[in-house]
Amino acid sequence: MGENILDAIDDAIHAKARLGIMSLLAVHGQCDFGFLRNELQLTEGNLGNHIRVLEEAGYIEVTKSFVGKRPKTTCTSTDVGIEMFQKYIEGLEKIIRMAQSGAQRQSET
Amino acid sequence: MGENILDAIDDAIHAKARLGIMSLLAVHGQCDFGFLRNELQLTEGNLGNHIRVLEEAGYIEVTKSFVGKRPKTTCTSTDVGIEMFQKYIEGLEKIIRMAQSGAQRQSET
Repeated sequence: MGENILDAIDDAIHAKARLGIMSLLAVHGQCDFGFLRNELQLTEGNLGNHIRVLEEAGYIEVTKSFVGKRPKTTCTSTDVGIEMFQKYIEGLEKIIRMAQSGAQRQSET
Repeated sequence: MGENILDAIDDAIHAKARLGIMSLLAVHGQCDFGFLRNELQLTEGNLGNHIRVLEEAGYIEVTKSFVGKRPKTTCTSTDVGIEMFQKYIEGLEKIIRMAQSGAQRQSET
């Protein structure tokens, strides 16, 4: 096989919650904190930690504003984040194709 | 969206190393410990831990034998493991499709 099949799997994205955040940002462009929390059913603290990891990796931008008196936190993918997410997806697809070709070959024998 | 998109992502499989083990087993049917260690570039202890998680989940079977005087540990997917891995892959594909349709829509605007 030569290369390690896991090399393409970016740890900053692979964690389940962060995969969810990046996927929702890919779909919606930007998402606020409450929306992400509801969609992914995460606690506030847990979601906050995962957002911080993505922000520190430079994959998302976080802006804080107010709607009336209520604070609103909005996440947006950066260009780097979009590119790295695309690479991550390509890496996953490669693994999926490999695994499925193997599974098919075995079911034929 | 209704359902949580992460529900289909099985934690027992999702960890990078375990995704690698399950993928290699899907391709090769069975793999010995040394092969998995080399392919995935994991330490012995780390690989051992991940194998134990998959074994305890009932997704793989581990057999120990001797080749001459050298112990040999062989891993094989169980029927449950093959089924759960297939479900995991389907869940991932769903997320990938969702994310990519969103990315496409955004690049058109």
